[in-house]
Amino acid sequence: IPEDKMLGGLLADGFNEQSCLSRYESVLYRKTSAYKPSPYLVSKLRTYEDLHKRCGPNTQSYNEAVKQLKSGRNIGTMDCKYVVWVCYSGLGNRILTLASVFLYALLTERVLLVDRGKDMAGLFCEPFPDRSWFLPLNFPMIKKFSGFDQKSRESYGHLLKNNKIRASMKSLPSYMYLHLTHDYDDYDKLFFCDDDQALLKKFYWLIVKTDNYFVPSLFLMPSFEDELNKMFPDKVTVFHHLGRYLFHPSNHVWGLITRYYKAYLSKADERLGIQVRIFDKGPGPFQYVKDQISACTIREKLLPEVDARGFNPSKNPKVKAVLMTSLVYGYYENMRDIYWEHATMTGEIIGVHSQLRKVLIQVKLFPM
Amino acid sequence: IPEDKMLGGLLADGFNEQSCLSRYESVLYRKTSAYKPSPYLVSKLRTYEDLHKRCGPNTQSYNEAVKQLKSGRNIGTMDCKYVVWVCYSGLGNRILTLASVFLYALLTERVLLVDRGKDMAGLFCEPFPDRSWFLPLNFPMIKKFSGFDQKSRESYGHLLKNNKIRASMKSLPSYMYLHLTHDYDDYDKLFFCDDDQALLKKFYWLIVKTDNYFVPSLFLMPSFEDELNKMFPDKVTVFHHLGRYLFHPSNHVWGLITRYYKAYLSKADERLGIQVRIFDKGPGPFQYVKDQISACTIREKLLPEVDARGFNPSKNPKVKAVLMTSLVYGYYENMRDIYWEHATMTGEIIGVHSQLRKVLIQVKLFPM
Ligand SMILES: Nc1nc2c(ncn2[C@@H]2O[C@H](COP(=O)(O)OP(=O)(O)O)[C@@H](O)[C@H]2O)c(=O)[nH]1
Ligand SMILES: Nc1nc2c(ncn2[C@@H]2O[C@H](COP(=O)(O)OP(=O)(O)O)[C@@H](O)[C@H]2O)c(=O)[nH]1
Repeated sequence: IPEDKMLGGLLADGFNEQSCLSRYESVLYRKTSAYKPSPYLVSKLRTYEDLHKRCGPNTQSYNEAVKQLKSGRNIGTMDCKYVVWVCYSGLGNRILTLASVFLYALLTERVLLVDRGKDMAGLFCEPFPDRSWFLPLNFPMIKKFSGFDQKSRESYGHLLKNNKIRASMKSLPSYMYLHLTHDYDDYDKLFFCDDDQALLKKFYWLIVKTDNYFVPSLFLMPSFEDELNKMFPDKVTVFHHLGRYLFHPSNHVWGLITRYYKAYLSKADERLGIQVRIFDKGPGPFQYVKDQISACTIREKLLPEVDARGFNPSKNPKVKAVLMTSLVYGYYENMRDIYWEHATMTGEIIGVHSQLRKVLIQVKLFPM
Repeated sequence: IPEDKMLGGLLADGFNEQSCLSRYESVLYRKTSAYKPSPYLVSKLRTYEDLHKRCGPNTQSYNEAVKQLKSGRNIGTMDCKYVVWVCYSGLGNRILTLASVFLYALLTERVLLVDRGKDMAGLFCEPFPDRSWFLPLNFPMIKKFSGFDQKSRESYGHLLKNNKIRASMKSLPSYMYLHLTHDYDDYDKLFFCDDDQALLKKFYWLIVKTDNYFVPSLFLMPSFEDELNKMFPDKVTVFHHLGRYLFHPSNHVWGLITRYYKAYLSKADERLGIQVRIFDKGPGPFQYVKDQISACTIREKLLPEVDARGFNPSKNPKVKAVLMTSLVYGYYENMRDIYWEHATMTGEIIGVHSQLRKVLIQVKLFPM
């Protein structure tokens, strides 16, 4: 099978390959995708790319929109509308929410702009040709982002609750803050109603902070339903396609990923990834979770049982490499020691690897 | 080439292979030895094994000799003479000194008995057929061993210095303590003189504490010279042969060694071992030693230079596995990170591994 570099038309043409090696190389490391993007999704993406090129950072349209934002008034008819994704939460959540907000942008014909936070620009390549997806550093509101929370007076929920906003109003603020994180209340959640979407359409600037993968909620809204079904005839493929379209590790990160893979995992006969995601970082559930991991990997025949008496008989045993990621280092150490201190019933050899601690502290680079 | 399991006659026949897998399996992991033991050495070893079988722990001869030791007197003519190696210092020193004391035992026709200290019995297999080399746990002096030091009144050097011992003496103590550690003085060192050896011959029990590889000193003694030259026509092979003859990791340790090798090192295209041995554990020389390691490995073309700009081009690059051992964990982390964070000029991929920390605390299991 010739490797389909463009992922069935998902990726746009015209990138400099050297500037983002992962865009075309990641296909070499992944199983061949079982899903093809729909032609409608592909055409939506090409249309979006045109919009982004026309309205993105430092275009005339963008400059005008920023000017109006600064003026604090919401007047006139401008070309382009924007939705700003505020950098928030861990890497996993960021990936999930960025895909959600991008899908919302596709549905509402808005331009997605990405707040780079501390490290977004170092982590990911630009996904759209010709024009950056990053919010320019001189964007006037960046300093306010970290202050936005469930109590913010500028939030859509807060304004609704206090009767400060109605569709019939003549004068609207120049932007709207949408609070969609785990602590959102019933007013914040009205974002997911068609009537409210009609009102939000009036804003040139939407600012979103979220740690929810809210794609499923979009499917439940009558106004988006048809469009979504055309874009994704197979519902379960939303993140599959949007993820592959949007997220390409930067060359620096891709170097870390591929060198780690080649140095520690590639030569094994089999590879297994285990991510341990526990909420409580305390010592409480450690023993319990540890036992659960062993029980699960053995029951599912992912890893062999250990043999209390045995010595490895075979000269050329099968080697399995396990990559274990967790904020709690002990799970890795435990599994590594078990398979180091004991032979296995099958004679297989299990090497256990972890993400490197230094990185763990910075940001988790190894989503499986 | 058929694998020479018996190492050219060095190893004795008649062992149960299962009881000590490393004895015959280690040849599978090592480069073929360039040295063959001399027939004279082989016959010396077989003769020693007979002696050990006749005089070793719990034989009638041993029991008599212990009885006399308890009596505190040195009388009569007994069959067997002994040299007791006291467990002292780190694993590396123990291996070197045990080989030295065994050679001394061969030269003086004494039976070597090994004080097991905390962990010797768990680390090594029995090297002699039929009879243990470990000092029985009910040996009367074991509790005194840890108290022996340079100032001990029982030591040979102390007795000489204070004129308490002479060849002409009628009544001698039932044992002699030989203090041969780094802090020995000129009197202690008289051990390496032929006249003193003549006197020491009179003792049925010699107790030795040492952290010196004193084989070279034995070569300088006229009384041993001929015998040594016959045993080792090639001087540099002394440790090579004695090490292979004496030191076989126990099944437990061999399991740890071979599983580690198979899981983390075996699949690489090349392997390199680096041991960092620094005396000072403080932070002082860290930067200096780190730079020295890099400079040396690059100059000797053991490892490639890193390429500040480069990304690894090749799909199937050569993978080198480096095993780095040190009491200071930072050397390993530093090298691992360098080759993770940068591509190399040659495109090779370097995986860096360390001994597992848990073990580091117990005992160093990975002499290279
Ligand atoms: N499918 C998938 N989801 C992930 C992965 N890592 C994180 N997530 C999701 O992201 C959420 C949290 O990720 P992140 O923000 O990095 O969380 P943190 O663990 O709280 O720092 C989790 O609840 C998961 O649902 C991954 O590797 N695969
Ligand atoms: N040839 C060789 N010598 C070693 C090795 N490890 C230790 N040694 C020697 O053993 C001495 C000290 O080893 P050890 O007692 O384990 O020392 P520690 O490092 O002070 O704990 C060193 O000075 C070395 O000469 C090894 O792997 N190879």
